[in-house]
Amino acid sequence: MENILVQKYGGTSMGSIEKIRHIAEMIISFKKQNEHMVVVVSAMAGETDRLIALTKSITEMPALKEYDSIFATGEQVSAALLAMTLQSMRYNAESYLGFQVGIRTDAAHSKAKILSIDTQKIYTELDKGKIVIIGGCQGISPEGNITTLGRGGSDLTAVAVAAALGAKACEIYTDVSGIFTADPRICSDARKIEKISYEEMLEMASTGAKVLERRSVACAMNHSVRLYVRSSFEQGQGTLVCEEDPTMENILVSGITHDKKESRISVRGDLGVKGGVANLFSHIADKNIVVDMIVQNIPDEEAKSSISFTVPKEDRIQAVQIVKDLYKDAHVTWNDSISKISIIGAGMRTHAGVAATMFDILAKENIDIKMISTSEIKVSCVIEEKYTELAVRLLHEGFQLAKKKS
Amino acid sequence: MENILVQKYGGTSMGSIEKIRHIAEMIISFKKQNEHMVVVVSAMAGETDRLIALTKSITEMPALKEYDSIFATGEQVSAALLAMTLQSMRYNAESYLGFQVGIRTDAAHSKAKILSIDTQKIYTELDKGKIVIIGGCQGISPEGNITTLGRGGSDLTAVAVAAALGAKACEIYTDVSGIFTADPRICSDARKIEKISYEEMLEMASTGAKVLERRSVACAMNHSVRLYVRSSFEQGQGTLVCEEDPTMENILVSGITHDKKESRISVRGDLGVKGGVANLFSHIADKNIVVDMIVQNIPDEEAKSSISFTVPKEDRIQAVQIVKDLYKDAHVTWNDSISKISIIGAGMRTHAGVAATMFDILAKENIDIKMISTSEIKVSCVIEEKYTELAVRLLHEGFQLAKKKS
Repeated sequence: MENILVQKYGGTSMGSIEKIRHIAEMIISFKKQNEHMVVVVSAMAGETDRLIALTKSITEMPALKEYDSIFATGEQVSAALLAMTLQSMRYNAESYLGFQVGIRTDAAHSKAKILSIDTQKIYTELDKGKIVIIGGCQGISPEGNITTLGRGGSDLTAVAVAAALGAKACEIYTDVSGIFTADPRICSDARKIEKISYEEMLEMASTGAKVLERRSVACAMNHSVRLYVRSSFEQGQGTLVCEEDPTMENILVSGITHDKKESRISVRGDLGVKGGVANLFSHIADKNIVVDMIVQNIPDEEAKSSISFTVPKEDRIQAVQIVKDLYKDAHVTWNDSISKISIIGAGMRTHAGVAATMFDILAKENIDIKMISTSEIKVSCVIEEKYTELAVRLLHEGFQLAKKKS
Repeated sequence: MENILVQKYGGTSMGSIEKIRHIAEMIISFKKQNEHMVVVVSAMAGETDRLIALTKSITEMPALKEYDSIFATGEQVSAALLAMTLQSMRYNAESYLGFQVGIRTDAAHSKAKILSIDTQKIYTELDKGKIVIIGGCQGISPEGNITTLGRGGSDLTAVAVAAALGAKACEIYTDVSGIFTADPRICSDARKIEKISYEEMLEMASTGAKVLERRSVACAMNHSVRLYVRSSFEQGQGTLVCEEDPTMENILVSGITHDKKESRISVRGDLGVKGGVANLFSHIADKNIVVDMIVQNIPDEEAKSSISFTVPKEDRIQAVQIVKDLYKDAHVTWNDSISKISIIGAGMRTHAGVAATMFDILAKENIDIKMISTSEIKVSCVIEEKYTELAVRLLHEGFQLAKKKS
């Protein structure tokens, strides 16, 4: 089936009946230009908070299966409300839940992975001329339980559905007009990026850009889904995330990101026991804790080895416990007041000295770098949290991101 | 599997986190006495109203499939909250949605009928020692869409599950302590009934007793499910609904019911055309409108025939339209200000003159009877709505229901 457009509308876009009506009108205007439309929706803004408050009043540690069953209702309601709204405007629309369009996931409740999507049901409904509305962020486990996909899960649903259907594009409608060179709340002169490669977007999402979650970008990259990020409240092309093209190589740094959501854990001691650090990180992975940066120094003959790594703040207590259980004699410290600042650019592949420039800019203001991690197109530095905004502005200015580039 | 107890907790019992905790404690005390527990829950009180308000702000006539998808979330949330609460008290409990325990229904959205229940899943979970919590009032249609069962649907789920599992009893926990001889808000001396036959309960539910809905009673009767109605807020045996036994025959009238929810439609004209009245009522049934009383007079040679029938008030507009479409020349009138007063008692089978006594009691106070309908164990009279409370009190006193009977 050709000419399928997948769109996703976030919680703020679905925040009230009036906004849902506005979204319905947008969808209708797109339907006039596109033969087949699939729309993925998030829960109405505020709904998730309401449900969290309900569960928290019972227990701080709910069984994740029950948690998922509760949270999936947010998207269930908003999808049906949007379908009703389109129907009331005399358009043929119908809402479906994850399990109804065969979105099969693993059983990792609250952060499940999509395993497969049964496209036949969607094709059949599109073939009848229907606008297919899908409740985002949810699927069904092999045991037949409702799962949710975690943060950014509705984006992931949209991208995965677009990939499975071979859609011509996947458009993510949100409350910002695209991806910016830095957080506009920090850099008032941050510039909207017209086009960015999957790899760069993946690095930006992994290092703190909040608009897209990294799994959605990875899924788009793996299946070459043309991904647009746009505002549902204003006109504009937004940002296109796509394959890298030659013009992108000229851009040294595409964007600056920051991330205050991680904690650093440092371990010093005899880490060679029990399979060494590989064993440590496999224990941490078993608990579904995502480790971001890892820095290990090479121990000399005398000294004990030491390793530092970062994990999401909310997983820090659990991760420290795992370390202590494994290395009873090791010295474990942690720091929740850190921030990770990153510069991302495909141009780094062909231009030397970008990292050095970054260190230089930070050093000039006496911002101490505590950890460094690099990839082909990214340099990340962990600094003290209080310097976050200062560092972002310095780097944004230093790499001349506000200016229009040729 | 033996020794299974099915319980159902209504919306007011689940009205807040505190009340859910209280229900969880009740369930635990029952679990200690019963090997296997299945609990069916309604949505938290107020939740359904909130969801109705949401849909009404979009359209007065939502597609019923979307409506069902929204309303089923109420039970989805309350079931998971109860499971979480039991888990937080260290009990092994898990929540399931209708489709997850194979509650298959027809596709009559918003008032679906249960076709079958796949007991295997429930048996398997009970076998593991789990308290099985089921979101009430919902199932899945042959097309794989979520359906809801309509008013009293959670009771129906409980009774149907109890029947399918061969449970030793089904206990309906509500905000009243049982079935009364008349509405206690009208008759302050109304008496709680200890034991009532399925047939009588069916007539009471059909004629206005609100505690149990008639489909639940019919299902219990068809499968000989011992049904208890009790308060979740106070101790007590409540009312047992069961097979008729010899002692019940001595009771002339078991209860008085009233129903203000119907409208009367009268048609006068040449109704012989187009298949006659059978055709009329099949057209009405096609729209899922339930006709209650039907009174037809026998036309003499000259006069045209006339028929009167009652339908739920909310279906009156549609029913009148059906009549007008079928009989273009007929004279159609309707009255929304009517009330149906009924006396029910298994003893009527063996005692003559009960109906006459009822007419006499009403006539003495000049209450005009507009329609009469009788069954083996029931007499119903349609009267003017304004006389409802007066008539109930007169009959309750006239048939000496407040007094203790031997």
